[in-house]
Amino acid sequence: MNPLVFALSGALTPEGHLLTQRVYYEDTDFSGVVYHARYLHFMERGRTDFLRCLGIEQAAMAAGPDSLVFVVHRMEIDFKASARMDDVLTIRTATEKAAGAKLILNQEIRRDGALLIAARVIIAVINARGRPQRLPAPLIEQFSAASAS
Amino acid sequence: MNPLVFALSGALTPEGHLLTQRVYYEDTDFSGVVYHARYLHFMERGRTDFLRCLGIEQAAMAAGPDSLVFVVHRMEIDFKASARMDDVLTIRTATEKAAGAKLILNQEIRRDGALLIAARVIIAVINARGRPQRLPAPLIEQFSAASAS
Amino acid sequence: MNPLVFALSGALTPEGHLLTQRVYYEDTDFSGVVYHARYLHFMERGRTDFLRCLGIEQAAMAAGPDSLVFVVHRMEIDFKASARMDDVLTIRTATEKAAGAKLILNQEIRRDGALLIAARVIIAVINARGRPQRLPAPLIEQFSAASAS
Amino acid sequence: MNPLVFALSGALTPEGHLLTQRVYYEDTDFSGVVYHARYLHFMERGRTDFLRCLGIEQAAMAAGPDSLVFVVHRMEIDFKASARMDDVLTIRTATEKAAGAKLILNQEIRRDGALLIAARVIIAVINARGRPQRLPAPLIEQFSAASAS
Repeated sequence: MNPLVFALSGALTPEGHLLTQRVYYEDTDFSGVVYHARYLHFMERGRTDFLRCLGIEQAAMAAGPDSLVFVVHRMEIDFKASARMDDVLTIRTATEKAAGAKLILNQEIRRDGALLIAARVIIAVINARGRPQRLPAPLIEQFSAASAS
Repeated sequence: MNPLVFALSGALTPEGHLLTQRVYYEDTDFSGVVYHARYLHFMERGRTDFLRCLGIEQAAMAAGPDSLVFVVHRMEIDFKASARMDDVLTIRTATEKAAGAKLILNQEIRRDGALLIAARVIIAVINARGRPQRLPAPLIEQFSAASAS
Repeated sequence: MNPLVFALSGALTPEGHLLTQRVYYEDTDFSGVVYHARYLHFMERGRTDFLRCLGIEQAAMAAGPDSLVFVVHRMEIDFKASARMDDVLTIRTATEKAAGAKLILNQEIRRDGALLIAARVIIAVINARGRPQRLPAPLIEQFSAASAS
Repeated sequence: MNPLVFALSGALTPEGHLLTQRVYYEDTDFSGVVYHARYLHFMERGRTDFLRCLGIEQAAMAAGPDSLVFVVHRMEIDFKASARMDDVLTIRTATEKAAGAKLILNQEIRRDGALLIAARVIIAVINARGRPQRLPAPLIEQFSAASAS
């Protein structure tokens, strides 16, 4: 794979989708570490690029006639350790379950292998009218293939 | 109470601490509603002003010799409905439990009474060396008094 | 005026529109002071509430048939001193010029009277098709009346 | 150069430092395009990685005995066109002037070559006591070498 594309959008691996991101000033707060809500930004970037690597461009998909929108319904987040300015983080996104109109993802943020954040994200799949929309079978297969081994 | 102070820092009520905040451009994303991680900002503002109304200035407390730092350890967040640009939101913060070196808060974000976000926030209390620090008895009493009736 | 409304949306005064806002964790970075780009958030809140106090709801106005959208075209910002966690800031917004399809605003952020940020904001007024749109005469009068005395 | 390192921190080129970044949900607002203050985040990432490529780690440098802190003093920003969700942006950072205790940088944000944002950033160099600090001669040489050709 082109390493530039890999670096920008991450890659699907046997452990799930992996994305590398840097911590900048904007991510930190006066306590000296990363502001807690910023980890949700890193995880959202991970989910977006996970979908991108599966061939799903969210902006395009939301606009199309058979629109499919992914909405975060619930998050359970364990904050285990803190990231700091200049840290290089790896965001891992893997499917726990893909069925009906629901998607459950497990996400982790690590620095040099050490686990900083672990999250479980329950996502509702809806259509343009805001109603639940069953995931098409090919997508379910794709998501299921991206579960952590 | 001075209404300007109330409006800026909210107030302790029999239902817990209430803070009113407006949704601005910065809070929304291209899907047209508030970006999911921004609700954590609103809740953090609520917790900060809850502590402020209890007489706890976090910046001062973290700097003092008997420093006490409140660190989010786990969040469980249900995203039930979306807020939009210009909405006026009420953030409610109430104590579920205050004991030892742990604080559990329940937080809700409502618009015109309708529940948008419900969260359970587990907070670790630590000292300047990052070690667990038991909450002083007077603080436990204060937190316990601020449970939802 | 109702002090709660004043506190939430600020007020038009002979010096221009004044809005009071608190600095929270989210606004700071690891250097200990407010992250430079956050001052633009505070100023955007000031402009939004300046328009609101003039009777202009941007979300509604952008959606209407004679839509009018305000787009920041250029900013000149002097960062004179830093704000910190828990500070209470006053954002002042005043008209420098309102003519044709252009609006020039002067904005200041102060803490206890001390000037922290001074900015000049050049705004283009466009319609739904992205073309320049002359400000209606009554709006020009309103904006002009809100110049600093 | 290792393409992964290039992709993460950008690279010094004859045109100045170039950094590639993606637009995510967090960067957009309900108007459909990138929120204006977010361009300052992209530019700050560019400046941080420009310094990193020059061998300057800001967090380490600010902590050292001969600490050197770079503080944004003034910004002039032209917003020429808008970025959107999923866009890939290139942030260019080049030295206009490095002398005494002052650094002037020119920054641009482009998408597929099209200029979206042009900015002039005046930076004050200070020491740990907040006093102006002359740039060491080797740093001035390094910055001067990174002017756009």
